[in-house]
Amino acid sequence: MSEIINVKLGERSYDITIEPGLLRKSGAVIASLVPSGSRFFIVTNTTVGPLYAQTLAEALSDHTSTMSVLTISDGEQYKNLTTMSDLYDELADRKARRSDMIIALGGGVVGDIAGFAAASWLRGLPFIQIPTTLLAQVDSSVGGKVGINHRAGKNLIGAFHQPRAVIIDPQTLTTLPDRELKAGMAEVIKYGCIKNPSLLSQVVANRDLISAVEPVFMSMIIAECCRIKAAIVEQDETETGLRTILNYGHTIGHAIEATLGYGVLLHGEAVMLGMRAAAWISVRMGLLSEAGLRTQVEAGAALGLRLTISQIDTQDILDHISSDKKTTGAARRFVLLSELGNPVINDEVTDELIIEAIENLKEEP
Amino acid sequence: MSEIINVKLGERSYDITIEPGLLRKSGAVIASLVPSGSRFFIVTNTTVGPLYAQTLAEALSDHTSTMSVLTISDGEQYKNLTTMSDLYDELADRKARRSDMIIALGGGVVGDIAGFAAASWLRGLPFIQIPTTLLAQVDSSVGGKVGINHRAGKNLIGAFHQPRAVIIDPQTLTTLPDRELKAGMAEVIKYGCIKNPSLLSQVVANRDLISAVEPVFMSMIIAECCRIKAAIVEQDETETGLRTILNYGHTIGHAIEATLGYGVLLHGEAVMLGMRAAAWISVRMGLLSEAGLRTQVEAGAALGLRLTISQIDTQDILDHISSDKKTTGAARRFVLLSELGNPVINDEVTDELIIEAIENLKEEP
Repeated sequence: MSEIINVKLGERSYDITIEPGLLRKSGAVIASLVPSGSRFFIVTNTTVGPLYAQTLAEALSDHTSTMSVLTISDGEQYKNLTTMSDLYDELADRKARRSDMIIALGGGVVGDIAGFAAASWLRGLPFIQIPTTLLAQVDSSVGGKVGINHRAGKNLIGAFHQPRAVIIDPQTLTTLPDRELKAGMAEVIKYGCIKNPSLLSQVVANRDLISAVEPVFMSMIIAECCRIKAAIVEQDETETGLRTILNYGHTIGHAIEATLGYGVLLHGEAVMLGMRAAAWISVRMGLLSEAGLRTQVEAGAALGLRLTISQIDTQDILDHISSDKKTTGAARRFVLLSELGNPVINDEVTDELIIEAIENLKEEP
Repeated sequence: MSEIINVKLGERSYDITIEPGLLRKSGAVIASLVPSGSRFFIVTNTTVGPLYAQTLAEALSDHTSTMSVLTISDGEQYKNLTTMSDLYDELADRKARRSDMIIALGGGVVGDIAGFAAASWLRGLPFIQIPTTLLAQVDSSVGGKVGINHRAGKNLIGAFHQPRAVIIDPQTLTTLPDRELKAGMAEVIKYGCIKNPSLLSQVVANRDLISAVEPVFMSMIIAECCRIKAAIVEQDETETGLRTILNYGHTIGHAIEATLGYGVLLHGEAVMLGMRAAAWISVRMGLLSEAGLRTQVEAGAALGLRLTISQIDTQDILDHISSDKKTTGAARRFVLLSELGNPVINDEVTDELIIEAIENLKEEP
């Protein structure tokens, strides 16, 4: 089976293709996106490169004579201006041209940094995303948000630069550590909460298929998430409105991730905690039912995601939220739920409620 | 008098306003471009800041309570990732938000670097250009090309990010060193060569008004250049075709500037030499008349621009051109003239002809 989702953005439209085993047959599709004679720069990391760069290079080898593999260190802590500068040097040394293509092969960090290199080198090269983690497959590879972190926060430097294609091979998930697979499921839960609650019951009912990384089921789940994300991005490419709902769980989640220091929690793990806090605030503000909160929490528990965290400093987290980049004007913007599948933007969450919500994360649900 | 030129780019449209004395009355116009409560970050350099930052701050002071002046070093050699990193740090420390505005107050370097900071911080803040050099007023402040240099070449890292407005006060030219004023006139000559040959006779006939920086005449010349540039940018915002003609004189000009080391020649001075070479190649290829070449050269001479240079290494320049970012595929792209006002793109200029053209620059025209 092969699922193709077209992201409709006028002249920046592109296809997301999801198919088990797609990586090894992706050469023709990739080559068709650029003029003949274009060269390919595969950006990957020290973990994913040894696993999949060779497969991709072989897939491309019938279609191009020139490709280079540029390998960056693995980890969120390398998603910074230093790594970006190294990538610029590599592109300069290899005389990358405007007609050449950058291919991001890896997880969200690789996609974000390779995408920003593609956005900014020569003011923009074509690039494609080949996400190999669940988090990247269901979220970060779609929608064109690329960038790097600054010591003051995540993704503070970046661009909107749409890929020419997203190539998703769910079989790459078989080599993903179990912890990362689970963390990726947090974003699947997010899509369930903001748009399609039946996703929650599906993933709970089929948690064995998820643990086994059963390719047909994983393809179906990934495709549904990509459909939801594509529909949102189509309506709000540059995050001036609707797209904000994709940040459900991210305001507190980002703050937890940052104050603990990047690398302690995985992004998805922090988002799961952030979603628990956001749903709890939604209940306390009379928006969401207790049952809605429980359904969300149970989905997280069924997938083995952590729902409590004790080693956090509440004031630190509150301070971090106040300087969060999603802040506009004086108001602090939260995505809450009025029911499962119905997100609402709320600028009136008080400090007191945030503090209570964070304290609440220190206890079992 | 006030000239307003609208750059028509759909939702990214904006006005260029040209008026002697405009700087001190620009506050209301600038403030009208962002929501109330927005803050202003004035990016300037160590030369322009002491001259004009206070005037701008006073103009803004009735309309905002919060503005900061961020000062960078003066010179092309600072248009790099290190300065950009410093600017990011300043924006982070001051918690710049998506609704805040960056104001570039200075020449081309300030506009390019402040513009790229605006393009990439939080994936895009609004910004306006207040160019204070002739070069920036007639060229670099209009059209949204922003970026920084890499050791491998100029402007290799950047974005297309349109300003919300361009505010031009020709009286700022009274403090511009004479050498920079002359260098800026090279770009005026460029517009004459690629679009409106009567500009050449006008600047030659009125060279005394130019030396005296007579504000009405300067406004007229600047407005005509901005009209030409706006019309070209409207048709080709991201330089996929027509916009290339704005690079007339820049292929060899850039190479001379780079191989001598940035700072030896001013950009405009290098472009004048590059235009002489491009016109000479045009004549040798049977495209342009000898009279056309002579008219261009005489305009440069009348404005006191240097037309010869002896201390250049021909092979170095040729090598640099071959790795120039405007290169696409195997062809080297030159902008030539079929007559004054009629540029043609040509991919077939031979190494031999380039070498001859560079050697020719070592002798008086």
